[in-house]
Amino acid sequence: MANKPPIRRLALLVEYDGTAYGGSQHQENAPTVQGVLEEALSRLTSEQIRVALAGRTDAGVHALGQVAAFSTRSRHRADVVVRACNARLPRDVAVRAAREVGRGFNPRAEARSRWYRYTVSTRAVRPALMRNQAWHVPQVLDLDAMRTAAAVLVGSHNFAAFTPRSEVERGSTTRVVTRAEWTCAGSEVTFDVEANAFLQRMVRRLVAALVEVGKGRRTAKEFRSLVEEAVPGAAPATVPARGLCLMKVRYESGLFDDETNEDI
Amino acid sequence: MANKPPIRRLALLVEYDGTAYGGSQHQENAPTVQGVLEEALSRLTSEQIRVALAGRTDAGVHALGQVAAFSTRSRHRADVVVRACNARLPRDVAVRAAREVGRGFNPRAEARSRWYRYTVSTRAVRPALMRNQAWHVPQVLDLDAMRTAAAVLVGSHNFAAFTPRSEVERGSTTRVVTRAEWTCAGSEVTFDVEANAFLQRMVRRLVAALVEVGKGRRTAKEFRSLVEEAVPGAAPATVPARGLCLMKVRYESGLFDDETNEDI
Repeated sequence: MANKPPIRRLALLVEYDGTAYGGSQHQENAPTVQGVLEEALSRLTSEQIRVALAGRTDAGVHALGQVAAFSTRSRHRADVVVRACNARLPRDVAVRAAREVGRGFNPRAEARSRWYRYTVSTRAVRPALMRNQAWHVPQVLDLDAMRTAAAVLVGSHNFAAFTPRSEVERGSTTRVVTRAEWTCAGSEVTFDVEANAFLQRMVRRLVAALVEVGKGRRTAKEFRSLVEEAVPGAAPATVPARGLCLMKVRYESGLFDDETNEDI
Repeated sequence: MANKPPIRRLALLVEYDGTAYGGSQHQENAPTVQGVLEEALSRLTSEQIRVALAGRTDAGVHALGQVAAFSTRSRHRADVVVRACNARLPRDVAVRAAREVGRGFNPRAEARSRWYRYTVSTRAVRPALMRNQAWHVPQVLDLDAMRTAAAVLVGSHNFAAFTPRSEVERGSTTRVVTRAEWTCAGSEVTFDVEANAFLQRMVRRLVAALVEVGKGRRTAKEFRSLVEEAVPGAAPATVPARGLCLMKVRYESGLFDDETNEDI
């Protein structure tokens, strides 16, 4: 009798419009990105596939570069997995690439950094075409002040102020930010932030506080104090999920570094 | 007894995601952009408002710069009309601006030119985030050949080849094209075309033929012959509506020229 085929592990680069999903992880009563991936992969392999994701994204958050991993005994080539998944997945989720990885690969624990982008539309009138991919702030923002404030973030800091108090009890709230940049194109203002890891809601709370700086309701110096004093939960409430997109997860191995995000 | 207030005419600059709509004009069994505008305006003014549009857009076609006009006895200021409409319209339709115009203003007849943009995604894998705003052509296109071919379009030509035969019987098929440009950003390829007016399906048939040139299935010279021979309906079938967006309608008066489209 033939032996069972060996277990392999595959990593997937995944893009999705999060509008219709209840976050990337399993939840009751709402379809999740993890759920639709597991369904597509289980049908393809005729196995019960469990998928691990690199980053938890909340309901309504998008991704161009989420990384997922799963183990299987099926022998489908990586490019066949890409094509077969995309034929089975709903139109708002797509697998951009697949790669063979080591059997112990953990996409979350092994990630060296995550890059998120938050998009703000400053048009006078709410956007219709980009309504699910930007937060509408109909006023002129002081980009210089927002840039000055954001520059404080780069480096190793205790980000306790930018997460719910409950998370502070779960472990260290120190993270290392390597990039925190505001750019402007027409009436669209975007915040690119990269760190070794993020606390729960951290990007959206950073954006909330920085947009207050842009509105002149808080000075860059006050923003700096918020970071330095690190009072748990001290930053203002969060901003809408729809403006947020997980752009890239980086690995020491360079996994998926050849796939670009230049086309959004 | 007081006289009735005089009739005024207002022009609206309208943006919409056409995905959910059965084209801009009245149709049975499908909501239309014209229909939702008339509903919002009728509720605002307590009158039976009829809206005239500058350009007919087919089901699934988007607009950043559609122009609509309506007559009313209501005295709402133009900025109030904008705010009130946006509070009443569905999220995928927005009024960007409103202006007082002459009582005889006809947005279609008076338009000097229309600018359309068609977006092609050439990624290997279908796009999820931009799934409703681009046509997916997963191969490398020869942009130089497409540019050479498109250059032929500028000027006054008989575009009979690029419209259904039925339209040829309805009048002249000569149109004046002032711009026909392909640009490339990452894996996204866009076609900007402006003309005094367009025949039915003309932009999508032009794109279909030009993408064949980009795929090497037709030479730029053969494309030129298609234009010059002007055999009614000779061009290949159309491309999906979702890639098409009405960017701007221009008027002699400069109506809405101060509103830009730089934020898409």
